Amino acid sequence: MQRYFLEDSLSLDQQTVQVTGDVAHHIIRVMRMNKGDKAYLVFQNKQSFLAEIAKLESAEVIFALLEEEKEVKELPVDVTIAHGFPKGDKLELIVQKATELGAHSVLAFPSDRSIAKWDAKKLLKKQERLTKIAKEAAEQSQRTYQPLIDLLDTKQKLLKKFQDYDFVMVAYEEAAKQGECFKLASFLTKIKRHTKILVIFGPEGGLAKEEVKMFLAHEAFIVGLGPRILRTETAPLYFLSAVSYELELRLKN
Amino acid sequence: MQRYFLEDSLSLDQQTVQVTGDVAHHIIRVMRMNKGDKAYLVFQNKQSFLAEIAKLESAEVIFALLEEEKEVKELPVDVTIAHGFPKGDKLELIVQKATELGAHSVLAFPSDRSIAKWDAKKLLKKQERLTKIAKEAAEQSQRTYQPLIDLLDTKQKLLKKFQDYDFVMVAYEEAAKQGECFKLASFLTKIKRHTKILVIFGPEGGLAKEEVKMFLAHEAFIVGLGPRILRTETAPLYFLSAVSYELELRLKN
Repeated sequence: MQRYFLEDSLSLDQQTVQVTGDVAHHIIRVMRMNKGDKAYLVFQNKQSFLAEIAKLESAEVIFALLEEEKEVKELPVDVTIAHGFPKGDKLELIVQKATELGAHSVLAFPSDRSIAKWDAKKLLKKQERLTKIAKEAAEQSQRTYQPLIDLLDTKQKLLKKFQDYDFVMVAYEEAAKQGECFKLASFLTKIKRHTKILVIFGPEGGLAKEEVKMFLAHEAFIVGLGPRILRTETAPLYFLSAVSYELELRLKN
Repeated sequence: MQRYFLEDSLSLDQQTVQVTGDVAHHIIRVMRMNKGDKAYLVFQNKQSFLAEIAKLESAEVIFALLEEEKEVKELPVDVTIAHGFPKGDKLELIVQKATELGAHSVLAFPSDRSIAKWDAKKLLKKQERLTKIAKEAAEQSQRTYQPLIDLLDTKQKLLKKFQDYDFVMVAYEEAAKQGECFKLASFLTKIKRHTKILVIFGPEGGLAKEEVKMFLAHEAFIVGLGPRILRTETAPLYFLSAVSYELELRLKN
């Protein structure tokens, strides 16, 4: 069923919702939905409702809220991916897949080995496009939260953000080469709900030693992601899948 | 370090290896390597050696074998992905990523909702291209095994293959919708080394009910991959990451 993220918050006794703008356009012109058709509406506070179209006009749709969606679609912890600017449009793949896999946010930053040099104008344009990709992926994967995208223009800004998280990890491929394979599982098996995690990935060619040192000096720790060398865009998908497997599938057993 | 998959097997006392053809071309013309340079050579029996160039000629390289690579790069179980033909070139992404994540083989088959209709000629051409992608991804991710790619022209051929595996699983998105989240973890925590697993994924739009019924009638079982709906190309990556996390990271703790 179609799912729409709305910019509204929901008031306590609200029974109907008026939808205009892009979402109304999509419902009326793209999906050609009719009175009585249903969709999920997701509000800013992450509440999600099954709703039925009560009235359609040329650029406005009125929904009657039927019932709140009960299943939890969000990871029990907040995972933010911080990715060194990769080449070309790989960040689009990363944002789309990280959203499907439950990421809370995706940051990107100019890493020492990043080939891409994006100026402020380009960053803004990219960020808009990536935000749209995250929104579509969140709708498609039936999430109740739309990941935030933030493209940083300096590494210092990433360091400043460390204080917003309970833990900062660095996925460092040298760790895989040296056989580091303990930290991630030992961390995930002890983690508490709602923990805020930042995990940093390098671009093609990986993180530079100096960068890793700097992250470690700011209380980050290194995790290995298994014995094979993963491409830059594959590593965050492995990480998020492991978090989901541990906390959504395994802990329930 | 560069890694090459050779078609040779290694005899017991062999000290040197003569390399010709594409691999020699890559070493001489693309990488412009010299006498004394090193690379990993992977033989048909999955043995992998650090080797040094002893002699270079115009189309031939002689390597001296230095030492066998000790670290295990392969998953402790054989996972074969069977994917309903997806749209466009998504199978390329699936093969590349599944190889990085340790898949033993990738099969693809015409699923009821597959839009792609590929005739025998097209299948053969695709299979060649995908085999090359798997080889490159195996080299890049430092594996010691190059996944086999097999594009089947009927679903019956897939059913026939069930007998080659210890377990057959179906990743069915309706399972996610119904909250199935127990089977995969309860399976992986009990699995034995060298188990052969086949896991089936649908194309865009998912597997049809009738197909799933048929697979189940042939002793397959359904697994859910968490509460979010994953795109067709994302689901196998989640599955392989979960297998790696459970068997390569978690079990070692």
